Amino acid sequence: MRERLFTPGPTQIPERVQVAMSNPLVHHRGSEFKKIFKEVIENLKYFFQTDGDVITLTASGTGAMEACVVNILSKNDRVLTVSGGKFGERWGQLCQTYGANVHIMEVPWGQAVDPSDIKSHLQKNPETAAVFLTHSETSTGVAADIKSIAEVVRNHSDTLLVVDAITSAGVLPFKMQEWGIDVAITGSQKGLMCPPGLAAVALNDRAWQKIKASDIPKFYFDLLKERKAQENMTSAWTPGITLFMGLREALKMIREEGLETLWQGYELLAHATREAVKAVGLELFAQSPSNSLTAVTLPESIDGVKFKRHLREKYGITVAGGQAALKGKIIRIAHMGYYDTLDMVLMISALELGLADFGWEFKHGEGVFTIQNIFMQNQK
Amino acid sequence: MRERLFTPGPTQIPERVQVAMSNPLVHHRGSEFKKIFKEVIENLKYFFQTDGDVITLTASGTGAMEACVVNILSKNDRVLTVSGGKFGERWGQLCQTYGANVHIMEVPWGQAVDPSDIKSHLQKNPETAAVFLTHSETSTGVAADIKSIAEVVRNHSDTLLVVDAITSAGVLPFKMQEWGIDVAITGSQKGLMCPPGLAAVALNDRAWQKIKASDIPKFYFDLLKERKAQENMTSAWTPGITLFMGLREALKMIREEGLETLWQGYELLAHATREAVKAVGLELFAQSPSNSLTAVTLPESIDGVKFKRHLREKYGITVAGGQAALKGKIIRIAHMGYYDTLDMVLMISALELGLADFGWEFKHGEGVFTIQNIFMQNQK
Repeated sequence: MRERLFTPGPTQIPERVQVAMSNPLVHHRGSEFKKIFKEVIENLKYFFQTDGDVITLTASGTGAMEACVVNILSKNDRVLTVSGGKFGERWGQLCQTYGANVHIMEVPWGQAVDPSDIKSHLQKNPETAAVFLTHSETSTGVAADIKSIAEVVRNHSDTLLVVDAITSAGVLPFKMQEWGIDVAITGSQKGLMCPPGLAAVALNDRAWQKIKASDIPKFYFDLLKERKAQENMTSAWTPGITLFMGLREALKMIREEGLETLWQGYELLAHATREAVKAVGLELFAQSPSNSLTAVTLPESIDGVKFKRHLREKYGITVAGGQAALKGKIIRIAHMGYYDTLDMVLMISALELGLADFGWEFKHGEGVFTIQNIFMQNQK
Repeated sequence: MRERLFTPGPTQIPERVQVAMSNPLVHHRGSEFKKIFKEVIENLKYFFQTDGDVITLTASGTGAMEACVVNILSKNDRVLTVSGGKFGERWGQLCQTYGANVHIMEVPWGQAVDPSDIKSHLQKNPETAAVFLTHSETSTGVAADIKSIAEVVRNHSDTLLVVDAITSAGVLPFKMQEWGIDVAITGSQKGLMCPPGLAAVALNDRAWQKIKASDIPKFYFDLLKERKAQENMTSAWTPGITLFMGLREALKMIREEGLETLWQGYELLAHATREAVKAVGLELFAQSPSNSLTAVTLPESIDGVKFKRHLREKYGITVAGGQAALKGKIIRIAHMGYYDTLDMVLMISALELGLADFGWEFKHGEGVFTIQNIFMQNQK
């Protein structure tokens, strides 16, 4: 049986990336690495759609979140975080850990934050130093309307907008500079289609100004030190060299394809999957679904933990389950990463087979019929 | 021309490790990863020679250093650090960054700290919370007498001993538990023969007691959170999965060989290299040389930056140069990693060829004769 990953990070890795990572190691202070590093940084700017700096960190996405907090903030800074899922909560925990004065806006899991709520908060709290948001909330499958939120925040000229784009960059339309986002982060194992272990932080000049004034101690995640090291096309500390080799290849593929094409492709995969899920009688968990992943609410008769295990053991398909209060209640299917339409047909087929095994009543074949039909109608 | 790395991290990677890392990704919360994780943790305990906990971090070695400081210390704790090279200095910078009351003991670069100096310091400053040391100082090629120092520190029952074993674990004899070392760290790209991107922190119960009382904020590097996650055989944040796959294989090789055998093997490589360096008329920089690497002082007539570049461009050999005040004055040749005796003969040959190209006068062939002779005499 073939093993297939449909988890929203790590995702499936393109063969080209795998091959690139199998090349012999180069030294991270040598000329060959400088070439790799330069190309990666340039293409990450394209990936984030910014002319500003992009800093890489050898860490997971949470490391990049921490880097944002300890570099941008000063103690007692007032900040707004939005908690509508596990990753939104994490912004709040991080800001509290490092001594910020945090207002946590609670949004029911499954729903997106309303930009007008952010607007009212900023009007009442004009001294807010930064708003920390999650673009695509991986724990619930919800996408926030970052473009509208950025417009709102831009009207408060001193407030920075920091966006966790870990599962959105490269997948959902994301135009950092045009939309006026100050800081955005991502991780290597999501839209970048690489294994985990590298993260990136994109920043504009407004962010650097705030960083220069920050009084929170930092060392490993010191972004000013990293910017200095980048003048020599390397990182301050020893980087994950193999991941850089993979990232160069992945970014090359992304540029070949073009972001607009990728965004449209993911939109199609996600849309078709959502329709197929509905066609087999299940509901979507997210009210404003992200195209990065689809969170499927399971019927009460099906234990999600067992269902997830069954898909893996019987069909070799690994999906993600629910976290925290959602444990056992949803499964989450990735679209971001190295997937095409036929991968999603296969995934829906496994879903149907698994549902039938668990005695769920639905018109067999309706899921694969629906998803295939949508792909047929959308061929170019 | 073949490219060959002789840098003290990253080092050459065994083919078995490379192949292991080329396997398809597994999900870091799944059963297959739990197996890998469990095996890696168990073998890391052997690697450090401890029955205590070993925590892995997705970061470079500097991240593990930071983890030690922010978890073990509380603000204003008195600490002793020893600065006899770039990595010893880093302990001082880290402790200062996070608000400790730091005494930095300066040791001339190239020399090892005298255990009796540490003894006197602790006698005068009995309230010292922790001593931070570098076992093998990679910037100078010096090894400290950690066993004797541990004896000294153990006589101050409240003082913790934290050892940067990044380029010593697996290379120099290192018996964490037997010697009474409280905390030790390493990185994946050194004695563990993997690419960079993972680090490990080994801790005993005395260290955990101090960690529970720590008041320095931490999140990504929170060791208590990692210990909790380890109960489920995973890490708190998404780990560098491919590196775990490589590490499993590297540790398997290390166990097959046995630490004692490895230590003796590195001793032989280093000893023979040192004799060969002397045989071509050059001097060793380190007065107490580490077996992890050999730092060679270049004659004043040879510019080390140019010499290093020449070795790479003409012979495909990458060695490390000098850092900070040693820039251009030394080259550093790695022994730790995936090297055997013939690799070192080849390295000495390249050194001789390079020296001849730069007009250094010596008896051609004396280096390779010497190193080969020592290997012949030490065959088993």
